[in-house]
Amino acid sequence: MSNFSYLHLGEKINKEKNIIATFRVESNLALEEAAIEIAAESSIGTWTKVGTLSEEIFSRLAARIFDIKKITGYYQTEIGGPFWCSEKTENPQVNISTVKIAYPLELFELGNIPQLLSSVAGNIFSMKKINNLRLEDLEFPERYARGFNGPEFGISGVRKIAGIKERPLVGSIIKPKMGLSAKEHAKVAYECFTGGVDLVKDDENLTDQNFNRFNVRVKETLRLAKKAAKKTGNKNICAFNTTAETKEMIRRAKFIKKSGGNCAMVDIMTVGFGAVQTLRNENLGLIIHGHRAMHAALTRNIHHGISMLVIAKLARLAGIDQLHTGTVVGKMEGGKEEVLAINKFLLSSWHGLKPVLPIASGGLHPGLVPELVKILGNDLIINFGGGIHGHPGGTLAGAKAARQAVEAAMKKIPLAEYAENHRELDAALKKWK
Amino acid sequence: MSNFSYLHLGEKINKEKNIIATFRVESNLALEEAAIEIAAESSIGTWTKVGTLSEEIFSRLAARIFDIKKITGYYQTEIGGPFWCSEKTENPQVNISTVKIAYPLELFELGNIPQLLSSVAGNIFSMKKINNLRLEDLEFPERYARGFNGPEFGISGVRKIAGIKERPLVGSIIKPKMGLSAKEHAKVAYECFTGGVDLVKDDENLTDQNFNRFNVRVKETLRLAKKAAKKTGNKNICAFNTTAETKEMIRRAKFIKKSGGNCAMVDIMTVGFGAVQTLRNENLGLIIHGHRAMHAALTRNIHHGISMLVIAKLARLAGIDQLHTGTVVGKMEGGKEEVLAINKFLLSSWHGLKPVLPIASGGLHPGLVPELVKILGNDLIINFGGGIHGHPGGTLAGAKAARQAVEAAMKKIPLAEYAENHRELDAALKKWK
Repeated sequence: MSNFSYLHLGEKINKEKNIIATFRVESNLALEEAAIEIAAESSIGTWTKVGTLSEEIFSRLAARIFDIKKITGYYQTEIGGPFWCSEKTENPQVNISTVKIAYPLELFELGNIPQLLSSVAGNIFSMKKINNLRLEDLEFPERYARGFNGPEFGISGVRKIAGIKERPLVGSIIKPKMGLSAKEHAKVAYECFTGGVDLVKDDENLTDQNFNRFNVRVKETLRLAKKAAKKTGNKNICAFNTTAETKEMIRRAKFIKKSGGNCAMVDIMTVGFGAVQTLRNENLGLIIHGHRAMHAALTRNIHHGISMLVIAKLARLAGIDQLHTGTVVGKMEGGKEEVLAINKFLLSSWHGLKPVLPIASGGLHPGLVPELVKILGNDLIINFGGGIHGHPGGTLAGAKAARQAVEAAMKKIPLAEYAENHRELDAALKKWK
Repeated sequence: MSNFSYLHLGEKINKEKNIIATFRVESNLALEEAAIEIAAESSIGTWTKVGTLSEEIFSRLAARIFDIKKITGYYQTEIGGPFWCSEKTENPQVNISTVKIAYPLELFELGNIPQLLSSVAGNIFSMKKINNLRLEDLEFPERYARGFNGPEFGISGVRKIAGIKERPLVGSIIKPKMGLSAKEHAKVAYECFTGGVDLVKDDENLTDQNFNRFNVRVKETLRLAKKAAKKTGNKNICAFNTTAETKEMIRRAKFIKKSGGNCAMVDIMTVGFGAVQTLRNENLGLIIHGHRAMHAALTRNIHHGISMLVIAKLARLAGIDQLHTGTVVGKMEGGKEEVLAINKFLLSSWHGLKPVLPIASGGLHPGLVPELVKILGNDLIINFGGGIHGHPGGTLAGAKAARQAVEAAMKKIPLAEYAENHRELDAALKKWK
């Protein structure tokens, strides 16, 4: 079997000809054996030798394991099971490692994210021989990345539409999540825009319900957004949630465009990448706002699943312009290091695909803004839901307070000081300590 | 806040007007507090009180927690983190429970699986206050289920096309997973069909690669499938993997239909439900074969994610005719109890949506057939990859052996006995013990 080996430790990999995956692996097998199981199942192998697999095919297409690093310090005892042992427990049977595998580009179809996932994030999560597996990172050759459109607008495009050069954008999710009629929804949006919000968005589970029809919401909200823009002189962005079966989603996005809107929101994880790619490939001239609801079912467990960094890379390939990536300081999980790494990736230059504007959203209020900007920088949408609509003075006051907090952060004036002359901010700081 | 309570323990829920979700919850909060966090975030609430939420909206749309059961026995110490404690460790701070929540039907858009997931399987996985969360089950009112097409063929439709009344269908994944040219692929399929295989399928990561173009594979395989059918008198099914961006996927499915094929395969988890629904809604008159690659990233951890039962219910709503659900005895994880519960659901009558044919696939060989049939029954596709192509006599002999094993199981003759007069089966039994 020496000609059929997946092991090539220390080999120098041509990054222009291979997709490189980094996995975190937990298995009772020896490190190399576990890595071989993964490399085989995710490329061209199966559990037994088959007569139809030639040496020629193997040498051309088999995945190549080029790096294995043992991780020490903690382990667990049972396959996906309920019984875990602490870091102090000795369990020499479980081996944990970081494994790097190179996949020849020929294995993949260009422009097909589902096919990529079915390969490097598919059956391998199921294998009995592997206790836990996490896809930590994917690196793509330029040629592969260029098989996708990437974002149509990217950060500079979004900034141009919003008419904002340097500061973070202020976003607001209309609240409550559900229940407002389309007209009420539009009125709340109007108050947001009047108060200085730059982007208003639907909540992730609001689509086209009886109490708030999509088409009516779009029409009404755009009408009042226009009115607000006249009043304030600001441009503004309305992100309407198009999340649905693909054809219906596209119909909704086209309706936004036809109605004079500039942005389609989509729940990328729940519609799936098959549909997300379709939305982008329609070239509708709409900013695509990517919500990530359900991501944490995959990304949160450090033992098993797929990292948010990988999701962010796929979203950029697919062509998301604005992506929710975490707040560090809010109600949702997501450690500082992780969020920083993701945002750094989204902002960096990458195979000629435009940068993506990160969105911080979930549990934010004005008092958190300076810290948030300090950690995440200015290329950011700071999204407030309860942190605007829960303001003691209501939505308009909440919008003003949020915008004031961003102004203060940009001027590097402490919030408490800025609040002395900005009563909406003052009230917000008093409410949320 | 008494009029804004999510807690309605012991309340009798109208199952015709609510979607009921069962969650497994781990949190440092008290049981009721944790349940409220989940109910709020997944329906109409957020982390702070907002002025835009009226009592009328709340009473009409808020989720209702009607049952909480404490689970004792094991716990873990840290939020999604690396350090776990064993069952023996005392950690009174972590509370584990099963929580049942009723969601008023009005919260949901009919016929929109992504919107459903964004609600009951969305942000709630991310909340810092909840250490781990698993969506265990979903129950739907008839009205909601009827918002979907469900399977076009179902089990009886598939059996009619295959011309097989009672026995399990014998399937084969063409191996190696990748690397065969379209012509070679078709030849291997021909050998399968000639040997008595009923259904041949692509592997989950084979779509339209340079070495094996989709259109050529479809043409060639269907040509040889027809030839084999003439020879054997059997009907047969070719499941071609259409997995791609939605429009391309539909184009591929239409190409299958136009070319005289009868089945489109799709990797339901990696294309996502937005695209799966689109494929079904096209009404192409093709059996939809649902592969579940990547499911285990969500389903495998009993602490966190989404159960395979929930995925199976969504697949049935969306209209999958044949679904991979586990083997119990093969190379992939999936406990007996779990697989039995899923298959039982797929076979049961359910709101008028056709039953789905379960597929057992992964690490199977002829020797495992009697046990498999005993456990899972006759309404089943038994899928062999390595277990056919790895046969010492090659694919043709492997196909014969697989079919012989099914015959023996149907006749309730022990394999060893049946092998006395069936040399292909005999060779398979000798190879895989």
